[in-house]
Amino acid sequence: MTDFGLADHFVGVMKGVIAGIAPQARVIDITHEIAPFQIAQARYLLAQTYPYFPPRTIHVVVVDPGVGSARRPLLVEAAGQLFIGPDNGIFGDLLALPKAKVRELTNPALWLPHVSSTFHGRDIFAPVAAHLAAGASPAKAGKLINDALRQRSLAPVRTGKRYWTGEVVHVDRFGNLITNLAPLDLPELGRRRAVLKIGYEVIDGLSTSYSAAPLGAVVAVVGSGGTIEIAVNQGRADRKLGVGPGSPVDLELV
Amino acid sequence: MTDFGLADHFVGVMKGVIAGIAPQARVIDITHEIAPFQIAQARYLLAQTYPYFPPRTIHVVVVDPGVGSARRPLLVEAAGQLFIGPDNGIFGDLLALPKAKVRELTNPALWLPHVSSTFHGRDIFAPVAAHLAAGASPAKAGKLINDALRQRSLAPVRTGKRYWTGEVVHVDRFGNLITNLAPLDLPELGRRRAVLKIGYEVIDGLSTSYSAAPLGAVVAVVGSGGTIEIAVNQGRADRKLGVGPGSPVDLELV
Amino acid sequence: MTDFGLADHFVGVMKGVIAGIAPQARVIDITHEIAPFQIAQARYLLAQTYPYFPPRTIHVVVVDPGVGSARRPLLVEAAGQLFIGPDNGIFGDLLALPKAKVRELTNPALWLPHVSSTFHGRDIFAPVAAHLAAGASPAKAGKLINDALRQRSLAPVRTGKRYWTGEVVHVDRFGNLITNLAPLDLPELGRRRAVLKIGYEVIDGLSTSYSAAPLGAVVAVVGSGGTIEIAVNQGRADRKLGVGPGSPVDLELV
Repeated sequence: MTDFGLADHFVGVMKGVIAGIAPQARVIDITHEIAPFQIAQARYLLAQTYPYFPPRTIHVVVVDPGVGSARRPLLVEAAGQLFIGPDNGIFGDLLALPKAKVRELTNPALWLPHVSSTFHGRDIFAPVAAHLAAGASPAKAGKLINDALRQRSLAPVRTGKRYWTGEVVHVDRFGNLITNLAPLDLPELGRRRAVLKIGYEVIDGLSTSYSAAPLGAVVAVVGSGGTIEIAVNQGRADRKLGVGPGSPVDLELV
Repeated sequence: MTDFGLADHFVGVMKGVIAGIAPQARVIDITHEIAPFQIAQARYLLAQTYPYFPPRTIHVVVVDPGVGSARRPLLVEAAGQLFIGPDNGIFGDLLALPKAKVRELTNPALWLPHVSSTFHGRDIFAPVAAHLAAGASPAKAGKLINDALRQRSLAPVRTGKRYWTGEVVHVDRFGNLITNLAPLDLPELGRRRAVLKIGYEVIDGLSTSYSAAPLGAVVAVVGSGGTIEIAVNQGRADRKLGVGPGSPVDLELV
Repeated sequence: MTDFGLADHFVGVMKGVIAGIAPQARVIDITHEIAPFQIAQARYLLAQTYPYFPPRTIHVVVVDPGVGSARRPLLVEAAGQLFIGPDNGIFGDLLALPKAKVRELTNPALWLPHVSSTFHGRDIFAPVAAHLAAGASPAKAGKLINDALRQRSLAPVRTGKRYWTGEVVHVDRFGNLITNLAPLDLPELGRRRAVLKIGYEVIDGLSTSYSAAPLGAVVAVVGSGGTIEIAVNQGRADRKLGVGPGSPVDLELV
């Protein structure tokens, strides 16, 4: 996962480096279309992704506006998987998991011989991932540290007995508005009905599919990440409602 | 092939699910840039694609506006290959092939344990494909059915002894206008000359390459899918002619 | 590497052809977002890419406005790797390497049985690459030739004792302006300070990272390809400076 896009050679070169060190490693792209420098977006997509990968998967996450500065390169061991990337908060949610361990990448024997100041994806992160895939132990990559940046994703705020305020955390390809309101955290939802307010729209109740609403109508469903998602059947909710990431969403259980 | 785009985690997560079930399976992306919900576009691109894949390839095609509703998930066996996706017409052309068989995916043992209402690509289609790749028999996925949606691509209409009306079925990356007019279906073309009318343009005769025309000029060639294609040498025919998918194309043999 | 984009079936079909001929071959995408027909862009990205790939890598580069015309399909052996694509200058830099050999692809036994006039990526380049990956010798692909197009990338011009004029050769995903001014070619740079002039901007000295400048400020660094790169810390230099590929960059050592 990177913010490198697919128009340059960046991603392909990282895969070339991996192929040279660990020819048997299989590389899967999550996305390279993180908006440049948008750490929160990477954190959200990573949280949606890693639970579906096999144990010992090595994730390389490069959204790195501080490349070449003093920010540290990290290896995080959490949830039975490995995560490699810069110390800028992208791994903030993982660090809160039980038994999470963090190492600073300090062993240049696992890097390319020449390290540029602008492309650590190629020179540090990809080669370290490849050496781990080829059998190197995490301990070989660097020493444990305990002061990595722990910035976490925001949780909804309870604003009354039956009121919560969450927010839109992601707008997906289809214009669906993914919120951070998770029904599993709201046990009363089984007995009551959710009423959502977002922008000028009031949505009364959750539906079981996008197409439960008429074409072009607004609908709220429990999305694939387990949180409430506001959509327009075969349309774009972001445009129809005029909202985006960070927009508040009020939930009332009635 | 999906309409998921590459900016979200959707495609990567499907590959993670496959890697967990069938670590040896090789995954090839056809495209994830089908315009949202454009079933006809998926059907066209699929028809251009599967003949070039090895026997027993498993195609996963997710363009699925009805996800979570009553539309059925399908497994189609046709042309020596397997096709997995929703019952909404994307496989309409395949169902017309000799010996095509259709199964409804009804065996949750091949799915993820929890099935969301918005992401069957991850929860049903990818895991079924992975189990098939790992050796499960198609029969294990579900029972044969015979009422899948048979909606087919349109064929040109013969409008006179030497006249046909076809249409633009696809505009490719280069702005080339791919029609459904196939020279193989027009045996007289060997003895006569094709004159094409599209928008305000009249094109007299077929050329052997894009660059047979001067830079910027309109040219008609037999494209890589075996149908007539209207192009502009190093330019965009869609913009120059102001036409797009669905635009009529008249053919006269003179 | 192609200019095919990812919205059509072109790239996926090439991989299907390869999978049929060389099932064990691993395919890595460099980019498919070369702007249509932009040979110089492909040449630049290829030069940044191949040094990071393992020996015997087979590169398939299809930016091919002359497809179907008399332009020849080539196989270049250089730098311990193989390069396949059209004879239109994309391999111009490689041909200048010591011991570079060029063959014209003339053996249809390595092609698909039917060769279209518009998609040699599928019909010639991919199958030849796959046969080579499966063990065919380069000599089997065709005879050596010595008149391939040798068009090369431009080098900076020395305009005075301590003055050079280079140019912007690429604008990357982040809007960074990559120049062809390479510090390794300027040994005096160790003792003197570089002053760069581009558009209306004067940049005094090279920095060690993008973030060495304040947010939004212009900074010059030595980029990952070894040449001077002009950037804006967490912004876009191309927009801030109003320049792009081909824009002149003056360098003075003071």
